[in-house]
Amino acid sequence: MKRRDFFKNGSLFAFGGLVSDFHSNLWLDNKDEFGSKKAKNIIFMVSDGMSTGTLNMADRLLYLKNGKGSHWLELYREGKINRALMDTASADSMVTDSAAASSSWGGGKRVPNGSLNVSASGEKHLPIWQKFKQSGKKVGCVTTVPITHATPAGFCVMQKDRGDQDQIALDYLDIEFDVMMGGGNENFAADKRGDGRDLYSAFESKNYKVFKNRGELMNYRGKQPMLGVFSDDGLPYALDRAHDSDLSENTPSLAEMSKKAIDYLSTNSDDGFVLQIEGGKVDWAAHANDASALLYDQIAFDEAIKEVIDFAESDQETLVIITTDHGNANPGLIKSHEVDENFNHLSHFTHTNAWLLNKIKTEANSFASIRELIADVNGNQTITKDQAKTLMNYYTKSNEGLYNTNNLPFGPLAEMQKDYTSIGWISMNHSGDYVELAAYGPGSDQLNPFVKNYELHNFMLKVAEVENKF
Amino acid sequence: MKRRDFFKNGSLFAFGGLVSDFHSNLWLDNKDEFGSKKAKNIIFMVSDGMSTGTLNMADRLLYLKNGKGSHWLELYREGKINRALMDTASADSMVTDSAAASSSWGGGKRVPNGSLNVSASGEKHLPIWQKFKQSGKKVGCVTTVPITHATPAGFCVMQKDRGDQDQIALDYLDIEFDVMMGGGNENFAADKRGDGRDLYSAFESKNYKVFKNRGELMNYRGKQPMLGVFSDDGLPYALDRAHDSDLSENTPSLAEMSKKAIDYLSTNSDDGFVLQIEGGKVDWAAHANDASALLYDQIAFDEAIKEVIDFAESDQETLVIITTDHGNANPGLIKSHEVDENFNHLSHFTHTNAWLLNKIKTEANSFASIRELIADVNGNQTITKDQAKTLMNYYTKSNEGLYNTNNLPFGPLAEMQKDYTSIGWISMNHSGDYVELAAYGPGSDQLNPFVKNYELHNFMLKVAEVENKF
Repeated sequence: MKRRDFFKNGSLFAFGGLVSDFHSNLWLDNKDEFGSKKAKNIIFMVSDGMSTGTLNMADRLLYLKNGKGSHWLELYREGKINRALMDTASADSMVTDSAAASSSWGGGKRVPNGSLNVSASGEKHLPIWQKFKQSGKKVGCVTTVPITHATPAGFCVMQKDRGDQDQIALDYLDIEFDVMMGGGNENFAADKRGDGRDLYSAFESKNYKVFKNRGELMNYRGKQPMLGVFSDDGLPYALDRAHDSDLSENTPSLAEMSKKAIDYLSTNSDDGFVLQIEGGKVDWAAHANDASALLYDQIAFDEAIKEVIDFAESDQETLVIITTDHGNANPGLIKSHEVDENFNHLSHFTHTNAWLLNKIKTEANSFASIRELIADVNGNQTITKDQAKTLMNYYTKSNEGLYNTNNLPFGPLAEMQKDYTSIGWISMNHSGDYVELAAYGPGSDQLNPFVKNYELHNFMLKVAEVENKF
Repeated sequence: MKRRDFFKNGSLFAFGGLVSDFHSNLWLDNKDEFGSKKAKNIIFMVSDGMSTGTLNMADRLLYLKNGKGSHWLELYREGKINRALMDTASADSMVTDSAAASSSWGGGKRVPNGSLNVSASGEKHLPIWQKFKQSGKKVGCVTTVPITHATPAGFCVMQKDRGDQDQIALDYLDIEFDVMMGGGNENFAADKRGDGRDLYSAFESKNYKVFKNRGELMNYRGKQPMLGVFSDDGLPYALDRAHDSDLSENTPSLAEMSKKAIDYLSTNSDDGFVLQIEGGKVDWAAHANDASALLYDQIAFDEAIKEVIDFAESDQETLVIITTDHGNANPGLIKSHEVDENFNHLSHFTHTNAWLLNKIKTEANSFASIRELIADVNGNQTITKDQAKTLMNYYTKSNEGLYNTNNLPFGPLAEMQKDYTSIGWISMNHSGDYVELAAYGPGSDQLNPFVKNYELHNFMLKVAEVENKF
């Protein structure tokens, strides 16, 4: 494992130049700039399960590391966007899951948690990416989780059960969108699928170019539609990828996939394109109360924002929406005398808790080795022997005589890190908070400061001037 | 104790009519309406320690009770405001206290936590309410905590230590602002102050009209400046006040104090006025993880917003800023099958945890009586005998032989309520989140979408066209 500087070759510093022509207090900039122009293209960006604290802490962490905040909030600082607060409820709860959330945008109607554009009574709502395809636009989805996962699927398919990802992959084969990239080999490979079908061959027989490796993707200059599947399940966390040369070489970052998707879609579309980009593992990290996974994946999402805004600024015909589908775990910095020093520890982490707990499972077999491993990857965090024992007990027979090898001790480790990073969590599940939404480009001035998630459906059709008759 | 309907005589329903002339998607309304008009008056509203979840959940609770959300977010739904995300850091930490936060607005410079407009090196920053007084405006502060507390004090005085509230009360006597109302008798009464001085007489000898009772305040129509001190420490929580006829009669609500202050200041000021309004106990409730105290005090703050916007809409020369000084405890609804049902329990609470735990202290002397009391005021919440025991142990000798009568068991009670209300907390202290800020009225279009707290100082002077030469 080589340790590389996660930020050294990043594009953070280049961004300043691009925005230097803008002054602060220019709230109306984008309105003046775009007037009543149509949104020919739409790029819809979702940092899944991003509580406000996640957005804030990623910005603060970037300041600590680079002296400059996030691209997302740079858009605010430069007065380039309109913002909305978004109510994320589903049809059956104040607190949504990702399937119902994406369906609200995708189908324009709220559905029960777990469903993809199918109401409780079985009514199906045609998803917006299918509408845009019918109107002549190129269509794509890019994510860090399986491409058949809830957030991309909610823009694409109608299925009662989000869990039926084998079927969702088949739906994709029928629908024939132009770019689909992420993880999820389990739902495409013959030796992994329940029905034993080889979907890669099926996609190839429909003229798709299939990618399973970053190198192939980065070198591609062709005109065939693209299917990219770069891992069995979700892609690696950005922090782990940055400190592992194999992962860096073989799996693309979200920014890389986004750029390739934009390059392809924008040069092969006379009538415009629509693209969804999801930072899906931000949600997974929040579920695990895994602070370094969370913040570095939020930063990876932020790098994708840079690619998108770079394109949209030069293109001038692209509406960019940047948001999340719901909060998760409401993480935040907790006041204490040590909070600044503690939070800074995160700038020295080289791996996520997910990586660490799997490593302990396979390699660490003593209290000393567990303590050493944690100190090694968490910027010299020290844990007590009792704490090491707590972790180790999860991997061995517990007092009740049960093995607990599947449930890694994310909760206890997060609790041990609370005094070390000063980050707290309300739970390991989604929250009901209203969430942040930003819009840049033509149509963004028509955004209301408060929106319900399902209202985004008609908003997108309206600003793209696509009549909702399907 | 009479139980009255907290909302029956409220003004929630009247508000709809006032805004019915506005349509949605009218983001530019207030810009068009106010043009480049000067802000003759400024009303600065602070819900102290309000995390985003507090704003959201109060809105949801109002929907459950009245079928209509909060006045704060109604302003968003009607497209009447500009919003900003605000960085709340202090000079020495990412996570501020209320003194440094108010000083950043008040003095235009960040100071260390605990200080009121005095830098680490002793430099003093003249507070903005003194600047506006010198420019000829009438000046006031209204709060639900002691009027000498950090948030009002940060707009008024320069003191190294926020804790020196006896001195801050003396400063107020020197400065002679026009309206000062809230709690804090301990810092004004001869029998409570360290120096034994009777500040009420001192204020009266400077021509102030002193109020200690709601009735006196409500009947006042005079022209003398006003000092109102309605409790020893903070005012009662809104929920407890609503269900106690003595408190309702004798202590004013934040909305009532706000309306009286506006009535007085707006009719006695040729050159305009500035007024700070603080919902101070929102912060106290968050520190205690006391959900009903938090949300009903946020709703009481929201009732004050209605009074302020009613005035500002008719006046047309008033900039209204509505915000918080920092997050606190990041409360949020946690996803589960029962979350909607659980959250609805809060609409049946009749008292806060603060009231309940004090009641247990003085009256409950058995597990059965504790369980009965909790069921009585928390909408039939049932706790186990073990949980009752946990609470009772805080009032009796613990295993360590120590009395713990001062530290009421807020933490354990909040933990017991977590499964009953589905609300979680990250801690019992402030958070470092960037926070919500809304602005209505002349000058609000000059607000940048991202601001640092101290930038509000010059922003206010600028839109009021008061040159910063003091």
